[in-house]
Amino acid sequence: MSKPKIVVQEKIQLPSGFRAAGEAVGLKRSGRRDMALLVSDQPAAVAGVFTTNQVQSATVKLNRTRLRGGIARAVIVNSGNANACTGPQGMTDADRMTELTGLLLEAPKSQVFVCSTGRIGIPMPMKVIEAGIAKVASELSARGGKDAATAIMTTDTTIKHATVAIKVNGKPVTLCGMAKGSGMIEPKMATMLAFLLTDAAVERKSLQAALKAAADESFNRISVDGDRSTNDTTLLLANGAAGNKPLKPGHPDWATFCAALNALTLNLAIKMARDGEGATKLVTVRVCGAKSDADADLAARAVANSLLVKTSWVGTYPNWGRIMDSIGYSRAKVVEEQVGICYNKLLAVKHGVFAGASTYEQLAKIQEQKEFTITVNLNLGRGAAVIYTCDCTEEYVQINYVE
Amino acid sequence: MSKPKIVVQEKIQLPSGFRAAGEAVGLKRSGRRDMALLVSDQPAAVAGVFTTNQVQSATVKLNRTRLRGGIARAVIVNSGNANACTGPQGMTDADRMTELTGLLLEAPKSQVFVCSTGRIGIPMPMKVIEAGIAKVASELSARGGKDAATAIMTTDTTIKHATVAIKVNGKPVTLCGMAKGSGMIEPKMATMLAFLLTDAAVERKSLQAALKAAADESFNRISVDGDRSTNDTTLLLANGAAGNKPLKPGHPDWATFCAALNALTLNLAIKMARDGEGATKLVTVRVCGAKSDADADLAARAVANSLLVKTSWVGTYPNWGRIMDSIGYSRAKVVEEQVGICYNKLLAVKHGVFAGASTYEQLAKIQEQKEFTITVNLNLGRGAAVIYTCDCTEEYVQINYVE
Repeated sequence: MSKPKIVVQEKIQLPSGFRAAGEAVGLKRSGRRDMALLVSDQPAAVAGVFTTNQVQSATVKLNRTRLRGGIARAVIVNSGNANACTGPQGMTDADRMTELTGLLLEAPKSQVFVCSTGRIGIPMPMKVIEAGIAKVASELSARGGKDAATAIMTTDTTIKHATVAIKVNGKPVTLCGMAKGSGMIEPKMATMLAFLLTDAAVERKSLQAALKAAADESFNRISVDGDRSTNDTTLLLANGAAGNKPLKPGHPDWATFCAALNALTLNLAIKMARDGEGATKLVTVRVCGAKSDADADLAARAVANSLLVKTSWVGTYPNWGRIMDSIGYSRAKVVEEQVGICYNKLLAVKHGVFAGASTYEQLAKIQEQKEFTITVNLNLGRGAAVIYTCDCTEEYVQINYVE
Repeated sequence: MSKPKIVVQEKIQLPSGFRAAGEAVGLKRSGRRDMALLVSDQPAAVAGVFTTNQVQSATVKLNRTRLRGGIARAVIVNSGNANACTGPQGMTDADRMTELTGLLLEAPKSQVFVCSTGRIGIPMPMKVIEAGIAKVASELSARGGKDAATAIMTTDTTIKHATVAIKVNGKPVTLCGMAKGSGMIEPKMATMLAFLLTDAAVERKSLQAALKAAADESFNRISVDGDRSTNDTTLLLANGAAGNKPLKPGHPDWATFCAALNALTLNLAIKMARDGEGATKLVTVRVCGAKSDADADLAARAVANSLLVKTSWVGTYPNWGRIMDSIGYSRAKVVEEQVGICYNKLLAVKHGVFAGASTYEQLAKIQEQKEFTITVNLNLGRGAAVIYTCDCTEEYVQINYVE
């Protein structure tokens, strides 16, 4: 079987049978859009992955129970308040958000999911929320995807959406997605807020497996600051409006669907890393030659989360010594004399010392770029991992203490 | 037995039989003092603890072998170059530094220790180093402690030294110490550069045990940025010039000696946390009520190393939600509904939600101060831990990418 060719388009086109809206309802002090509603006209199979943080928002807790039903009609989302650390009242408020949305759409609340993002520990302003829900519900449109993708943003500086078109059983199928990232980003076995919609018909358990696999290779491979959020959520809705034979392993187009989903989630994940709070550079950290994939992951995360490495990337001095330091204190097995490091394809470190194959000036030219790759070869085995990350600037600090 | 009263003096007074010097020998571009020499006129018992990073400087590797001999006459220290990731040449250079120092002091090189701190991965400029060693060796003096403490500084903004005077067998005994910290600071089962000198006679194994215990409660309890260095080293020299009966467990003054050593190391450790790169605030993070001490340690380190928590401390908004988030993703057992958080003695969080016992304004007033304590009670057991840390400012970022 030839590998399906997947083209990711930098726009959002809702698949058939989906409508969306995004509006400014008064939750953000900036007056920007802060509430989104995504609706499937018919009940859709739904898959979800959530934060592994032990402190979880009311919305994550509620969505976990909703997911057991396996069916979604709508997702109501607000930015400006995370509804986390809000106690029993937070649960009541989250439930009320699904109930009200359900009433307006004539859907049971058990088929309505709810996501919140913003500041932790502040009670939800339910009067504003309720009026907001009525407003977005009245503005649903097949072209509302972009407004919705805008409304879920917090400190994001760029909208994050993408669309992939494939064929399943010869029928056109669309997958689209939107995401928000920016700060408190190191998803693990979970993701940040991301909503993926498709008109493909997909068998429910296979949908969950495909989402989990896609998230593991995309959202779970980014880090902005090493802080895992209380609210990370990805939902994937598949409403079957394309009329294909339900997808599952064994279906001739299953591989194509999975490839499309993977391409979509990776596209959104890299957008999150590139738009990390205050970031000026997208850095891909690849570790190979580790004793195991798990070891490679530990080493890659140590590099990507080292404050000294991340701040060094702001400037141009290729401070590879800090990369050596960070892998050294990671829990991965490291033998100093075996380590090789490349900046893009330029060898910087061999046998744990400066390789001399390139000059500091050449390495600095690479670090000057808006995108570059650091490859660390531990030369101990075949384990490999990749993390997408960014530099840590003064602006990151400012964003996070200025009121 | 009454607890001995220990007074830590904010100065450095070398114990009898020790001399020191610190000079500018041309390693730092700033022209500041960059080489220190500490000498015991008679062979001293020596104890040491070192970094657990798998990537270690040549000096750490050499000192580990030197420590087996158990005897020290001198410690030669340079700042401006870490002699880490410098391969076999780095080992040769470190050995040469001890050899030359030994020649000048008429001591075998096996009794000379060497420490380096500064940039990683740059070959040691041995001509400058050798001339420097001759210079400091010619300037040794019983009043040279302050110059030496100045010469070991890198990005430190304040000198870090202290002295404690006690009596052992009725004889006056002095303990003094100097340290450097600032960046790449999260020692663990090891420490940053710190040199401790005493004229007490101490049995060698007991000296090592006392140092390990003191380091565990001081240097191993601070974090500036969560980055553990390749060069962390603490050495404790005890030359016996006070003429007391050798100290060891069972000696009537053993507890006093240990208390003095603990007070000295804690004093230096807190100075390091307060003077973290770019820091404006010293924050003590206490976790109690954990399932175990190890769990408390995990939770306290998660708070102290969370970039979002540390940046929030720069401002005044008491963002306790980020503290909840960070303990939630720590590997400590956390039950959200059980968590309590205090700012100094003011209750901020009860049962995992805002307590309402204090206002945000009252909490902000605490966070405005140059020193405050965050206490997290997990209410799950009796485990407790403390970490001394600091805020993370724009200046930290600048220091670490500006050439």
